[in-house]
Amino acid sequence: MRYACGFSPVDPVVLLDAGRKGKHLVVPPLEYGRALDEARVSKVWDPEALRVPSESRRDPAAWAVALARRTRTCAATVSAAFPIGVARALERARIRVDIAEGALYPERAVKSEHEIACIALAQQGAVAAMRAALRALRAARVNRAGELVDRGRVLTSERLKSVIDRALLDRQCAARETIVACGAQAADPHHRGEGPLRAGETIVLDIFPQHQPSGYWGDITRTVVKGRASPMARRMYRAVRAAQAWARAAIRPGVRADGIHAEIKRRFEEAGFKTEHRDGRPIGFFHGTGHGVGLEIHEPPSIAVAKVRLRAGHVVTVEPGLYDPAHGGVRIEDTVAVTASGARVLVPCPYPFELP
Amino acid sequence: MRYACGFSPVDPVVLLDAGRKGKHLVVPPLEYGRALDEARVSKVWDPEALRVPSESRRDPAAWAVALARRTRTCAATVSAAFPIGVARALERARIRVDIAEGALYPERAVKSEHEIACIALAQQGAVAAMRAALRALRAARVNRAGELVDRGRVLTSERLKSVIDRALLDRQCAARETIVACGAQAADPHHRGEGPLRAGETIVLDIFPQHQPSGYWGDITRTVVKGRASPMARRMYRAVRAAQAWARAAIRPGVRADGIHAEIKRRFEEAGFKTEHRDGRPIGFFHGTGHGVGLEIHEPPSIAVAKVRLRAGHVVTVEPGLYDPAHGGVRIEDTVAVTASGARVLVPCPYPFELP
Repeated sequence: MRYACGFSPVDPVVLLDAGRKGKHLVVPPLEYGRALDEARVSKVWDPEALRVPSESRRDPAAWAVALARRTRTCAATVSAAFPIGVARALERARIRVDIAEGALYPERAVKSEHEIACIALAQQGAVAAMRAALRALRAARVNRAGELVDRGRVLTSERLKSVIDRALLDRQCAARETIVACGAQAADPHHRGEGPLRAGETIVLDIFPQHQPSGYWGDITRTVVKGRASPMARRMYRAVRAAQAWARAAIRPGVRADGIHAEIKRRFEEAGFKTEHRDGRPIGFFHGTGHGVGLEIHEPPSIAVAKVRLRAGHVVTVEPGLYDPAHGGVRIEDTVAVTASGARVLVPCPYPFELP
Repeated sequence: MRYACGFSPVDPVVLLDAGRKGKHLVVPPLEYGRALDEARVSKVWDPEALRVPSESRRDPAAWAVALARRTRTCAATVSAAFPIGVARALERARIRVDIAEGALYPERAVKSEHEIACIALAQQGAVAAMRAALRALRAARVNRAGELVDRGRVLTSERLKSVIDRALLDRQCAARETIVACGAQAADPHHRGEGPLRAGETIVLDIFPQHQPSGYWGDITRTVVKGRASPMARRMYRAVRAAQAWARAAIRPGVRADGIHAEIKRRFEEAGFKTEHRDGRPIGFFHGTGHGVGLEIHEPPSIAVAKVRLRAGHVVTVEPGLYDPAHGGVRIEDTVAVTASGARVLVPCPYPFELP
């Protein structure tokens, strides 16, 4: 909705994109004024103007049927995520409903300069928050139990996330599922992390905020150890760092995303990191190398097994990782824009590992 | 999803609630460990265990079909918001898809004690943020242009929202669409507000945050004037304050929500505030009196024109308002739980109007 017309209200609305004949938006009466001001559409309707019967005046499915009739629309293409209730109401009114193959606006994967600037705003928030988290980790000392301590209190994942949230807020960004995962938690790439942070163990910091005014997302991950890392964690870090740098350098228009993913897998194996199961738990590299970023945090194109050719204007994460419950996890992630000749890291951020 | 099984990931999942035969959840491989820990279900599946063909291993529609086959499910009832792509895939596999009349879990409107405690946590955040905003407005002085000034800078809607966001963060809450609307902006109940706040004009503060750990929402509105209000704004305030207090006192199990809404309209008319259009813009009281609050910010039951009887355990807002572009807007809102004998304001907050 935000991509198609720049309007994204709390409650449901109906948008009809009739191509050259323009876009029609139906909104609840209370949103009418704001929609007139903000929505990039040919016409804003409220249900009364569409003569929606009063008993279904609050039902978006009835708005969709009334709008289709008013605009003499006899067939509509919708996304696979379109609500079945509205689809069935359209079909009962003899309007054909087809599902788009893939994305409804496939051109959305290629970002405009303005969109890349918005993603960069989110990424500036993410990098500012990462720097704040790294500062807090550097400033922490270590108690006898090996836990990090900050201003007299144990530094937990929860407290470090609160440092991150504050830094994001300063940049008009907000994140919901920030990862600050230490030790064995870091070996599960989706573990959000909780409890005391400990010296000598890998700490994965994965921050993916949404820039609130524009709605665009950013994404960054760094992995650090307070004090000295184990020899195995150091080996994992070196392999991930090299693979991530290689992938950033390999990205350019025309290159196959799945080829990049396969090559990272190959390099990890060559470095001695096989992807397999041990005691029923996966170890090695068992997620994608990257995903598109825009008005959604996960959107096309992905850098994984799907056959995709990268194009200028794609904005993707590059985030290989290695995981092993016995040694923790290491993931390094930047968000890059594919340019005419390569890839540009949207907002650079250092890659520290062992923190003093 | 969160209501049905307590699990709410970033990416799509499939949930089958087979009633007494238990709940089945299909999640992407990366979420498997977390789902095992957190989801209240009988069984967690990953697509591989369901033998989803590898070419559709990442397609939730294929997971749904595989799960239906594995559990010998031949018909499913879904919500009206269910994705049409998944519904059509099920139908192609000869699984009947029916749409629920109304909500999929209608019992969700009646909250448990634990749920009410979660909503109260969100509401504590909302009230703390409201108090912080009121403190900032009281502390502000007024410059010669009539604008509010705080620490040498003009106090804008944007700056006051940032004060609100910080107070919310301290309570593990976050809000996206906070309203701080002054003067003519306050006359449009959905205007988010922007620019300098001015003395002598109504300022509507509407804060509806989500408590991040639990996912539950809270909602509060106060309307204030810095300095002296106009006689008309004072009349509007007195009418809204009396109507809101009356409605809170009128709520009890068995009472008709639409009756409460109609009575507020009647009281406003009696006080001289007719709801009508002037120059094409609505004036008076032209939104609902309240809505349910829970894991969504707007959910059943509503206190408006729909015929609904309130029940113990309902949690609703009570938020009458009066609007007039020539005089601004006044809305007062609390979130209340319907008890055995009446309504309990979840978190009390004063009702100041003219601020020194």
